[in-house]
Amino acid sequence: MAISRKEVARLAGVSEATVSRVFNNVGPMKEETRERVLQAAEQVGYVPNALAQQLARKKSGNIGVILPFVPKVHLFSTYYFSEILSGIGEAANRSGYNLLLIFREPSDAKDYSMLFRTQKIDACIVLGARDVPEERAALEQLQAEGHPFCLVNQRFDGTSFMTVDADHAAGSREAVRHLIASGRRSVAFLNGPAEYSSSRDRLAGYRTALRESGIGYREELVFVGNYSRKSGYEQAELIGERIRSGEVDAVFAANDRMAIGLMQGLKELGIEPGERYGLVGYDNSDGSRIISPTLSTVEVPFYEMGRLAAEKLLKEERKEADGQQEDSLLPIRFLARETSTF
Amino acid sequence: MAISRKEVARLAGVSEATVSRVFNNVGPMKEETRERVLQAAEQVGYVPNALAQQLARKKSGNIGVILPFVPKVHLFSTYYFSEILSGIGEAANRSGYNLLLIFREPSDAKDYSMLFRTQKIDACIVLGARDVPEERAALEQLQAEGHPFCLVNQRFDGTSFMTVDADHAAGSREAVRHLIASGRRSVAFLNGPAEYSSSRDRLAGYRTALRESGIGYREELVFVGNYSRKSGYEQAELIGERIRSGEVDAVFAANDRMAIGLMQGLKELGIEPGERYGLVGYDNSDGSRIISPTLSTVEVPFYEMGRLAAEKLLKEERKEADGQQEDSLLPIRFLARETSTF
Repeated sequence: MAISRKEVARLAGVSEATVSRVFNNVGPMKEETRERVLQAAEQVGYVPNALAQQLARKKSGNIGVILPFVPKVHLFSTYYFSEILSGIGEAANRSGYNLLLIFREPSDAKDYSMLFRTQKIDACIVLGARDVPEERAALEQLQAEGHPFCLVNQRFDGTSFMTVDADHAAGSREAVRHLIASGRRSVAFLNGPAEYSSSRDRLAGYRTALRESGIGYREELVFVGNYSRKSGYEQAELIGERIRSGEVDAVFAANDRMAIGLMQGLKELGIEPGERYGLVGYDNSDGSRIISPTLSTVEVPFYEMGRLAAEKLLKEERKEADGQQEDSLLPIRFLARETSTF
Repeated sequence: MAISRKEVARLAGVSEATVSRVFNNVGPMKEETRERVLQAAEQVGYVPNALAQQLARKKSGNIGVILPFVPKVHLFSTYYFSEILSGIGEAANRSGYNLLLIFREPSDAKDYSMLFRTQKIDACIVLGARDVPEERAALEQLQAEGHPFCLVNQRFDGTSFMTVDADHAAGSREAVRHLIASGRRSVAFLNGPAEYSSSRDRLAGYRTALRESGIGYREELVFVGNYSRKSGYEQAELIGERIRSGEVDAVFAANDRMAIGLMQGLKELGIEPGERYGLVGYDNSDGSRIISPTLSTVEVPFYEMGRLAAEKLLKEERKEADGQQEDSLLPIRFLARETSTF
């Protein structure tokens, strides 16, 4: 192999180290040099010995992305996951890494460490993690074994896991304050499951906004879906009754999908957003912009969160991190649209 | 290592072959057995030697998915890619495979074989392939070296590449026939780039529908975008003029994103779909359903196409294919909605 590499180097007019760098996808490289090396390699039929190479590098060149697997849900078609994944892909691609997608089924024994021990990945990003004991244990094991990983949009309180999150408490507070400022007094809240820190943050923001406005918190105005459109649609009957009785004059939903499902369900019951009720969603998904009436919402920089997570990880993986592990909490932005500003 | 495996087998009360099957993720396996083996492995600290294992199996356990990389475009947020990827993920996950995403940049020297030679993947699915010489050469090399791969939604005429496609000629024919049947006589066509077979198929269907209705084909009524919303929006001025002059009374767009962009652009010019013009898109994306007015479109089974491609590939990879390579051409379905049925 050494002779071959030498030959490639000679033919391409570069050093052997450069040939290695091209085949290991390490460091910056002029596109022109890269092409010349690849052409030379093709000419002499040079194939780097993958296993020897892996042994030497102990690297896979892959960033793992652990995703929840939900049968029948087209995961990549949800705004949330697709945006985060696009951001991760952008950063990974820029550094010459590929993404290895790993689906986590509810029944799986969670042994993420195995992915590192078997050299399938060099670092990993965990998405859609619920704060349950098995998940905590699996992540603690990763940390104990020194494998670099990062959580996106989820926190595990009391741990020092690397995390990239957005300020959902502030986002929810702003959304509810906006509804109250526009004259609404009884804001119902359609939240997601409490196992997600992002749901708990939203609840905290909702309560803060009520308190700041001198409005009492009433548990019977809090509804729970599972972040799907269908789960929003299914709450329409119950919430519709409260709107009809005048008990509720606004709804804040923890994501756009539930807000859109609820809006459609209420429409079928003859209740349109506007005078009857104000509505704010969360995410600023494509759907929120093109639905009619357009949906007021909270913009979350999911793409940037994915990109930042990958960048932080790769920095750590290359041992460039300064040892100071700091959480990233990205800012959100409230966007007033038609459903709350009639 | 053999001794360890023996120990795991004894402790779990299964055969050594079963232990191997669990760690190689091969074949069907009762969840209970799998868990017992994993627990036993953990108890004795058994870690399969990844490299030895890979040497023995010559398998990575990964299906590669080659995707175009377009800076600033959030690829996974497009309905088309996200649905295909969800389908691939479903099939891969069911067979215990992970997905390795590989971004193809326009400037890349296309050496897909390297991914196999370096044992990063066992099979691959190629998405968004343009029929250009370098791409053809790269795929022909894969075929010559006997690496299993499958194209989704793209064909390369004159080759015998494994392909899963949808009947876009029929879909476009139906869409245009519908517009003509509803009384429109001058149907403009906003197509995508001709390097994609799916664009050429759509043009063929458009021409067939015109011919069958005794309407002459006029090249000046064919416009070309790049499948982005923006590229549809940018045609609004030109197409708007034709609508105002009465030269055009309907538009068929090759995907929903361009149709929605065009509709928004025309709306800003004061031209609404309905009496002024009929509009049909293509894809049946989420956006087509929630936009107002709702967009008539053609449903393409992207999810099923992705799933089928992965299933065909894995069958070939396990040498279960019967040698008969047959193309899959999935049916489409026309959906009449508000933009063409006022």
